[in-house]
Amino acid sequence: MGGDNSPELLFEAVLLAVEQYPPTHTFILLATQQVVDNLHVQFIACLAVKSTARIEFHTVDDVITMSDEPLSAVRVKKSASVNVGMRMLKKHHLDAFISSGNTGAIIAAATLLLPMLPGITRPALLATLPTKKKPIAIIDIGGNLYCKANNLVQFAQMAAVYQRCRDGVLCPKIGLLNIGVESKKGTKELRQAYQLLQELSMRKVGQEGFSMKFIGNIEAREIFDGKVDVLVTDGFTGNILLKTTEGAAAFIIDQLETSVKNRSSKIFVNGEKEKLLKKFDYSEYPGAILCGVDGLVIKCHGNATPRALYHSIIGAIGLVERGLVKKIKASLIS
Amino acid sequence: MGGDNSPELLFEAVLLAVEQYPPTHTFILLATQQVVDNLHVQFIACLAVKSTARIEFHTVDDVITMSDEPLSAVRVKKSASVNVGMRMLKKHHLDAFISSGNTGAIIAAATLLLPMLPGITRPALLATLPTKKKPIAIIDIGGNLYCKANNLVQFAQMAAVYQRCRDGVLCPKIGLLNIGVESKKGTKELRQAYQLLQELSMRKVGQEGFSMKFIGNIEAREIFDGKVDVLVTDGFTGNILLKTTEGAAAFIIDQLETSVKNRSSKIFVNGEKEKLLKKFDYSEYPGAILCGVDGLVIKCHGNATPRALYHSIIGAIGLVERGLVKKIKASLIS
Repeated sequence: MGGDNSPELLFEAVLLAVEQYPPTHTFILLATQQVVDNLHVQFIACLAVKSTARIEFHTVDDVITMSDEPLSAVRVKKSASVNVGMRMLKKHHLDAFISSGNTGAIIAAATLLLPMLPGITRPALLATLPTKKKPIAIIDIGGNLYCKANNLVQFAQMAAVYQRCRDGVLCPKIGLLNIGVESKKGTKELRQAYQLLQELSMRKVGQEGFSMKFIGNIEAREIFDGKVDVLVTDGFTGNILLKTTEGAAAFIIDQLETSVKNRSSKIFVNGEKEKLLKKFDYSEYPGAILCGVDGLVIKCHGNATPRALYHSIIGAIGLVERGLVKKIKASLIS
Repeated sequence: MGGDNSPELLFEAVLLAVEQYPPTHTFILLATQQVVDNLHVQFIACLAVKSTARIEFHTVDDVITMSDEPLSAVRVKKSASVNVGMRMLKKHHLDAFISSGNTGAIIAAATLLLPMLPGITRPALLATLPTKKKPIAIIDIGGNLYCKANNLVQFAQMAAVYQRCRDGVLCPKIGLLNIGVESKKGTKELRQAYQLLQELSMRKVGQEGFSMKFIGNIEAREIFDGKVDVLVTDGFTGNILLKTTEGAAAFIIDQLETSVKNRSSKIFVNGEKEKLLKKFDYSEYPGAILCGVDGLVIKCHGNATPRALYHSIIGAIGLVERGLVKKIKASLIS
């Protein structure tokens, strides 16, 4: 509920996912009675399928919209899907919670209703960004406008665990987004974070004896070279970076088409253009992971397509199976 | 002196510019004796040309390098070109000062040696960014890591005057870079700046009765649509934005070539790729203008090519002729 696309459209993602898993898996949909009724009418044949994972409906009475003020909406609309979902996650009735609703409300509900991981005061959003090599994890992309040095260090630790879980990187390379490579560049918080990350680098941390390598400050023009596995930044800058990338991609492709429009041969054939644009459109990505709470919460882009939501579901199941949250917790106890 | 490219290479820009102007114009080169000697040996034939603008050499004894700590270097190396240049600018022995040296040193020298414009506490760097429509002015791109709301408002006023001077835009449209369009988005400083800019919008300000129109918050993905004439941000975020754009452009073109490498026809012919990349490579741009000091100071990218420096010189002369600094001053007295 509460995304830009209708719950009925997004339900297609669930139908796609449900076929991939055995009956031991249950997909729980939190929606208003009206949406549940619509889904039953539209998808009655699909819902009868018994050989695959189960779908359950839990009705909710409130809906938090994109224009609602997050904190007060979460406090007042107790029966909104985001609140119901977080309570179920806390009681371990869910292994993962996915939403394409109001980002602020998801963070507020998670912060109010879930226990924080050791030492974390506010959770951060982690997203992946394509590069010339492997996709990198960028954290934070919108959870925290202001970050202290120790917040940035925690972001690095959490994202390093994510890269180990997702991609098997044993000693993830960490970069700090800054306006120059020298250790004295940037704000006071960044200079302190540089020192702290350098001290932590290569030292075994956490109960699992997990290590990471800090490779220093990274300038924004270098991020697409894929030199790091994790790029650490505050939520404001991370958000600007992701959206600039998306806007620049669309603009460059537009410029390219304009500059060669008089040519006989086309630049793009068979949906190549759309494919390239999708690579930079983060509504196409599986979603951002809310790191720092004791529960797996994934935030899909507000206008996520059924395909993006499908990838979120598959991704979430993979992260549950690999024990992401437990491993993050262990890395923070050092 | 002090840029990534040798002064001898950059001198080619001066030779190109000198031919465009009558003998009433004088180009003053601030360089060490050794560089001056080299230039005389290499360019003796060119220097003999009498029918064009004049070239004068002033020798300096110190050089500030890219790795020098700006403030202390400016304080210690009194005879570095940046210090000599600022003193000449203050005494009106120069109409404009251009450098491709250490950015921090240029800002420090300007702040220490030039008078500030009314109400300005620290100058800001203004650059231009290509968009689907006209290039927009983005301010600040690296002068100030932390900005208060009234700093952002001053940036808007100064850049609006620049767009009027450069492009004849009578009532420039101002946007505030933020992570959402709603007035309550972003940091406390941004929310305050939103209110102040809204109050100032469309009101005649300054001695010249100059107006500007605030159109609200702009998300980073929208900047390339060219909806605004001026994009206001703090120096940290602006720097990240410019460099992300540069990196993303190179990456996208790389991806494009990879994705179609099996095709018979080439995507780019006759240097089209280089042309497109240059559009996003801000070392190709005429340079950033240091707004807020009483004197025209232009900072070229450290690895500026002779071509970029040539554009800086032409651009600087245009801004002197149109009285940019005087007009900025007038707009700040309201």
